Order: sequence, then C-alpha cells, then structure tokens
Amino acid sequence: MKLNCDLGESFGHWTKGLDEQAMAQIDQANIACGFHAGDPIVLANTLRLAKQYNVEVGAHPSYPDLAGFGRRSMALSANELRQTLHYQIAAIIGMASVQDLTVSYVKPHGALYNDMMKDRDIRATVMRAVADYPQPLALMLQGTPNFEDHQQQAREVGVELLFEAFADRCYGDDGLLLNRQQPGAVLDESAMLKQVDGIVARQEIITQNQQRLCFPIDSLCVHGDNPTGVAQLTRIRQVVHPNDH
Amino acid sequence: MKLNCDLGESFGHWTKGLDEQAMAQIDQANIACGFHAGDPIVLANTLRLAKQYNVEVGAHPSYPDLAGFGRRSMALSANELRQTLHYQIAAIIGMASVQDLTVSYVKPHGALYNDMMKDRDIRATVMRAVADYPQPLALMLQGTPNFEDHQQQAREVGVELLFEAFADRCYGDDGLLLNRQQPGAVLDESAMLKQVDGIVARQEIITQNQQRLCFPIDSLCVHGDNPTGVAQLTRIRQVVHPNDH
Amino acid sequence: MKLNCDLGESFGHWTKGLDEQAMAQIDQANIACGFHAGDPIVLANTLRLAKQYNVEVGAHPSYPDLAGFGRRSMALSANELRQTLHYQIAAIIGMASVQDLTVSYVKPHGALYNDMMKDRDIRATVMRAVADYPQPLALMLQGTPNFEDHQQQAREVGVELLFEAFADRCYGDDGLLLNRQQPGAVLDESAMLKQVDGIVARQEIITQNQQRLCFPIDSLCVHGDNPTGVAQLTRIRQVVHPNDH
Amino acid sequence: MKLNCDLGESFGHWTKGLDEQAMAQIDQANIACGFHAGDPIVLANTLRLAKQYNVEVGAHPSYPDLAGFGRRSMALSANELRQTLHYQIAAIIGMASVQDLTVSYVKPHGALYNDMMKDRDIRATVMRAVADYPQPLALMLQGTPNFEDHQQQAREVGVELLFEAFADRCYGDDGLLLNRQQPGAVLDESAMLKQVDGIVARQEIITQNQQRLCFPIDSLCVHGDNPTGVAQLTRIRQVVHPNDH
Repeated sequence: MKLNCDLGESFGHWTKGLDEQAMAQIDQANIACGFHAGDPIVLANTLRLAKQYNVEVGAHPSYPDLAGFGRRSMALSANELRQTLHYQIAAIIGMASVQDLTVSYVKPHGALYNDMMKDRDIRATVMRAVADYPQPLALMLQGTPNFEDHQQQAREVGVELLFEAFADRCYGDDGLLLNRQQPGAVLDESAMLKQVDGIVARQEIITQNQQRLCFPIDSLCVHGDNPTGVAQLTRIRQVVHPNDH
Repeated sequence: MKLNCDLGESFGHWTKGLDEQAMAQIDQANIACGFHAGDPIVLANTLRLAKQYNVEVGAHPSYPDLAGFGRRSMALSANELRQTLHYQIAAIIGMASVQDLTVSYVKPHGALYNDMMKDRDIRATVMRAVADYPQPLALMLQGTPNFEDHQQQAREVGVELLFEAFADRCYGDDGLLLNRQQPGAVLDESAMLKQVDGIVARQEIITQNQQRLCFPIDSLCVHGDNPTGVAQLTRIRQVVHPNDH
Repeated sequence: MKLNCDLGESFGHWTKGLDEQAMAQIDQANIACGFHAGDPIVLANTLRLAKQYNVEVGAHPSYPDLAGFGRRSMALSANELRQTLHYQIAAIIGMASVQDLTVSYVKPHGALYNDMMKDRDIRATVMRAVADYPQPLALMLQGTPNFEDHQQQAREVGVELLFEAFADRCYGDDGLLLNRQQPGAVLDESAMLKQVDGIVARQEIITQNQQRLCFPIDSLCVHGDNPTGVAQLTRIRQVVHPNDH
Repeated sequence: MKLNCDLGESFGHWTKGLDEQAMAQIDQANIACGFHAGDPIVLANTLRLAKQYNVEVGAHPSYPDLAGFGRRSMALSANELRQTLHYQIAAIIGMASVQDLTVSYVKPHGALYNDMMKDRDIRATVMRAVADYPQPLALMLQGTPNFEDHQQQAREVGVELLFEAFADRCYGDDGLLLNRQQPGAVLDESAMLKQVDGIVARQEIITQNQQRLCFPIDSLCVHGDNPTGVAQLTRIRQVVHPNDH
C-alpha cells in the first residue's frame, strides 16, 4: 500500500500546500503540470523535493483552466483532450529527466478525474493518451467495484492501472464516495484511521450502511494542502508503514 | 547548408503560416512550444508534418507572452528563464516521442533570440538550459563575426552550436543585420539569391558597404508565414539543394 | 430589421475576420471582450471601426477559453459566470467610453450562447449579469417559438431582449437550427436570400418541412470572418436595407 | 494624509493577502485588475469589501504577466501599454459601477510602477492612458524631489497626481528608496513610526544620511499581505488618524 498526494499546486507568487512536509511522508507525488497550477519554477522545485525524499513521480494533468484550478468540466474533443494530456505529461517527463528522475504514472486532476470516472469515452481517451507514450506509464484512478471493467478497458490499449482509495471519505454502498455536501461524507480522524486499517489489513471498505466492499487498492490519497491534512497524513503513515522510522 | 523555418505558430482557432508548403521544402523546423504560439493540437499537427516530410525537429521556445507573440522582452530572472526553457523543450521532446520523433536542437524565438544575441548572461542561461538535458541538443543562434566567443561560451557548458544566416536580410559591416526600418534592410529577390549563393559557395557575406565577411553558417533561415516567403523558399532551395527533385 | 456580426476576434499577432469590410455593412457589431479573442489593442481598433462606420456596439462575452475560442462548454458556477460576464462587459464599456462610444447590448459567444439557449438557469444568470449594470443593456439571443417564455424570464430581472435569426441556416419544425452536420443545414445563397426576404417582409421562417413559423426577430446574424460571408452580407444588406447607397 | 494598500491580489483558488483586515484600516484600496492578479470573482469580492468599509477605490493595473505577478518588466509599445491600461481600468470601473462604486484613481503595479518612475516616455503613456477616460481619474505615483517635473508632465495631459510615500522604507539622499537588498533599506517598527510621524507632521523625510527632504505626500503605502504588515498598519493608522476609534 502506498500513499499518494497532489503537490506542486502553487503558481507564480501564489503558494498552496505544505509540499515539503507532505513530500517527507508520502510514496507517490502527483505533480501539477502547468494547466491548473504549477508554473515551470514550481514544477522544478517540486521535482527537486521528490528527488530529495525519494518519492515516485506522477504527472497530474488537468483541463486547461488556471482560474478554475481545473475543477470545472470542459467539453474538450477527444483529440483536444488527448493532445492536452500529451503536452502536460511531456512537460513533466522532460523536466524530470533534467533532474535524472523518471515519471512512472499519470493521475488526472479535479474535474478531469471526475469526468474520467463517470464517462467511458473520456476514460478511453485518457487511457489512450497515457498508452501513447513510449515509456511505461501507469494510470492512477479510483478503485471501485467496477475495477474489472476498468481493467478490461485498460488492457485494450495496454495501460497498467493503479487503484487509489480515499482515506478520509465515506463510501456509499455502490462503492462511490458520498458527495462532500452529505452529512458524514468526510470521516473524522478515528473513522479515517479505522478505514485505513481495513484497507491495509484486508483490502476492504465498510460503507455508509455497514456493507463490506472488496476491490483492489494500490494507494491511498492523502492531503498536503493544509496543516490538518499533513497531521492526519502522519497518523495514516503510521498505520500503512508501521516499521518506518 | 540547411534551410530552417519557424513553424507551428498557429494557436487555437487562429491560423498562421503555410506550414505544409514550407515543411515540404525545408530541412529543419523550429516548432513553437506553446508560450508564444502552438497549443498542444497545433504542436502535434506540426510534428506530424515534420515526420511526413522527414524534417529535423527543433524546439522554438519563447518568453511567456501569447498576446505579444514572444516579441516583447521580459525581464525574467536566470532561474525563471532556465525553467521556462526546460518546460517548453520538455513539452516538444515528449510530444515528439509520442510520434517516434527526436528533437535535435533549440532555437529561441523572437525577443528571447534577440536578447540572447545581445546579452552574454542571457546567452549563458540559454546555453545552460539546453545543456541540462540528458539527450544531446544543439543550440541554433545567429552566425556573426563573434562566433568564436560564442563557441567558447558554449564549450564551457558542453553545448554544440548551429549558426544560421538570414537569406533576405542585408548585413552591416559589423556582421549584424541592418534594422528592418533602414532602407535596404530587406533584400530584393535577386540580391537575396546572390547572398544565398555567396553563403553556400564561399561561406561569405557581402555587407552593406561591400565588405566581405566570413564566418561559419550551418543553416539559412527562411520564411513560411506568407506566400511570398514560400515562393522565395522554393528559389532558395534550388540554390542550396540544386540536385533535389 | 438590423444586421449583426461577430467582430474583433483577432488576438495578438493572429488575425481573424475581415472586420473593416464587414463593419462597413452592418448595423450592430458584437465585439469580443478578451476571453475567447480580442486583446486590448484589437478591442480598441474594433471600437474605432464601429465609430467610423457608425455601428451600434454590443459586448460579445465568452467562457474564459482562448485556446478553444470559447466554443467549449465550461461548468462555471452561477457566481463565476456572473462575475466573468461583469468583467468582460466592463472592459468593453470602459474602452468604448474612451472613444466616446456607448455599448447598448450583450450577445454571449459560442458555447455560452448555446448553453444559455438550452439551460434556463444559465439564461437566468446571463440575464441577471446584464441587468446588474446601471446603464441599460439589452440581451441579444436567438429568436425561437419560445420567445414568450424568454421575455417573461427577462421581465423578472428587467432586461430588454433582442431576438436574432440566422440568415444562412435551415430551421427545423421546432424553430431550432438544424445541426450543421445535417445535410441542408446551411442554406445556399438563393435559399438564404429567400429566407431573409421572408423574415424582413413577413417575420416568417419556412422550416425544413415547409412549415411556416412566426416569432419576433430584431436582427439577422451575418458573417464577416471569410470572403464568402462578406459577399453574402452585401447581398443580404440589399434585401434588408434596399434604399441605402 | 491617507493610507493606501494593494488588495485583491488573490487569483482563482490561490489566496494572497489579509484583505478584510487591511481594508478595515485603510483609506484607499489599490485593486488588482486581472493582469497580474485578481480574477473577476476576486475583483467583485474586493470591491464589496471596499464598499463595506467605505474605502476609496483605485485601479491597480499591471503588465500582462500572471506567472510573474507583474514584477517583470515587459517591453510593450506605447500603444500596447495604453490599451492594456485602458482595458484594466475599464474592467474595474465597470465592475465597480455594478456595486454603485466609483473608481477615483490609478496606481500602476510592480514593474510597471518602477518603469513609470524611471522612464519619462512610459510615464507619459501612463498619464495619457489615465487622461483618456471621460471621468476624472488621478494618477498615484511616488513622491520624490522631482515632483514638480512630474506635475508639469501631468498638466500637459490634464491628469491630477497623488503622491505616495513608503512608511517602512529608508530613503536615500536622492529621495529614492534604498534597494531592498541594502542593509537598512527596510525600517524597523520604531524607525518606521518616526518616519510616518515626520511625514504627517512636517511633510518631511529624513534620509539615510540624516538629510531632510521635503516634497508633497498625499498618501502612505502600507502592506496587507502578511500579518506583520497588518499589525504595523494598525500602528501607522494610530499616528495618521489619531482621533479615529
């Protein structure tokens, strides 16, 4: 089980996230590529931190929407989306190569992530864009009861999948996250740690109505953009990697 | 002697340049990387043309200034310039890799090109940014009587230089281009072809005042952004590559 | 009956549209405000043309999407859309004031126009954004058989509506435009002039299946972005304003 | 004597500045217009705060450089600069009008401010751009021993000037600010309050070498982008407006 976190989401003179504190504790850094956040200097600095803490690097591409931080759906054509992904993945692969780093996976950001999970055609375009690269790149997406369907779709273009779960979010019986607006959608720390423990020990998630769900999970998504998130990350890490110093 | 041309300078729904007509006749395409022109779809399409016509691919990075088309100097710090170049070069290297193409050189665009020629520190930063890449990338700049100084500067960071000359521009006795506003700064077609012939046959340029200058020239810069430029390119090509169909 | 045309859709060094030729023949210029096209210099130049040809000025705001030319839907919140409209309308009102010009209406652009016609909530937000201005601004939208519903919605916020029709597009029996991909969706010149004549003489449109539709139309949308459009515009003008020079 | 502060410098999901805390204590808010910071939502929210605290509103336009926060000089032509200023001033005037607010002055931001102080031609372009507006707009710039020259230049285009001084910066004997990198360039709190007192009581500034300089000062520039700045602002306010609650 790994821990992944969105990082490199500052831009110009605007700072966002406690990147160094989070980087020190995670296994996989999803690094913004410049379209929702992450100008070239931010990208270079975040890659440097990843190298320093020996953290795996993933591209975190987005719809092209700085003002909206990539959180607003945009009706891109399949070709627009594909090339927009190629460009962002290219940017981080090349800048990583300058620091002798390798990018090993892609995790779409924000509205693109949500659209990818909901829409088979968008998912197909994302998978194809990732598969287009000559070096092996995995695609990180949300682990759900539909994982076999997603795996089948990925096999068609030859992309490996990494499934992530959300440590601090309550799952509905359908295996999807409760909407943030619903009461109980965000777990308190004790429930969160219990959920992490269930995932790590038994690959299982207990839903809102106490159903037991089982599907593959490779990584837990944690938060580095605020002090609470970083504090929780420390505790989650103790559950996931108990033997680390 | 090679022919190089700036291409891929459309953006979104705005078209600029007769890219396919020019691509069919040149040896080296300087392709915009998204900061003064060239969104991801334009970049992909231009790379496809380069592949189709078997043309060498160069990165054509710029100051970040879409509205000014990269023609306005910007006071970037050395680190800002370096990372901005890394990012743009990365973008084209990665997108080229998707089409099984290699990027072999970098030619800065517009105001950045001019600033690089005038300012030793900016030139040093550009050279270093190019040298930072693990794969070999040459830097294309203007051939001038100061070429040995430029070569010395390049050797310090381990970058190969490619020198270009301008087919249609009158040179002053100092080996620099006359300002476009001066009478006689842009050569008519007959003078242009004579200059091309002198460069190709004898590596020599006859200046405004009939001085003879000699310095290394690897490539001639030609224009593909208007019908006159493309027509001249056809004639220049007949001088430079007389045995081609 | 007036003629309206989208103008000022160049950006930086990219030129789009035969603005002066079109401006000489129309009554209302829908001028881009900088979010899909139209940087400040383009805006100023287009306003100058409008003044020279004594053409009414309308704001032509868009989703914030330069690379997509405002043709891609974006999921903005109501507040984001409202402020984004305020900003763009402000930009043109102020720049018009510098040239002693007044902006009299707003016509949304591209995907925003389509979304406004399809979605009551988006239409309400657009209407409210227009109504928020202290000076009177009309909203131009598509004339349809639902015009009374649209008028009712506009009355609630106190906005005057201007209805436009499309000279060169075939209408379905539902009063909506046939999709451009359908055969017959774009009228040939003779059918176009007949449609213009029907609208001008009898406020009627004959649909794809020869149904006769009647709804208010204040203005005809014509095209200035290509030579064919401008040539047609000349002929449409002869039908609409037969007594002009 | 008034207190002015740069505000509205957040962008999208990035927050910068303690805008409400600062707004509660100042007299004049220099509000970003979208080119270095301040998207439409931020602009609207900042105007709302200005209204709530009854603070005078000024436009704070910039070079078009989001990634550089307007702190990098850009070689705009006079016309580019003029229209770029018109556009930004228009944006805030219009958005202010929606909230029944008036914009009374313009203070350029960052590199543009510095370039305006150093370069007579750029200053002339800025003055002309401000004068172009039909409503009266003052221009705020740095008070210096050259104030009469600046006033003469402003009279030629009919613009009123507002002179500002910097509460926390040490002045050289030439009346210019010491470079931030020099020791003693930024005053400690006690020296700052002494300087404020000198300005308020006697319109005088004591320079680095204890020279006494006298020139008109209408407003003191204070900082709202960090807790220290806001704490100092509270103390400065007690000196400047001792009788306020």
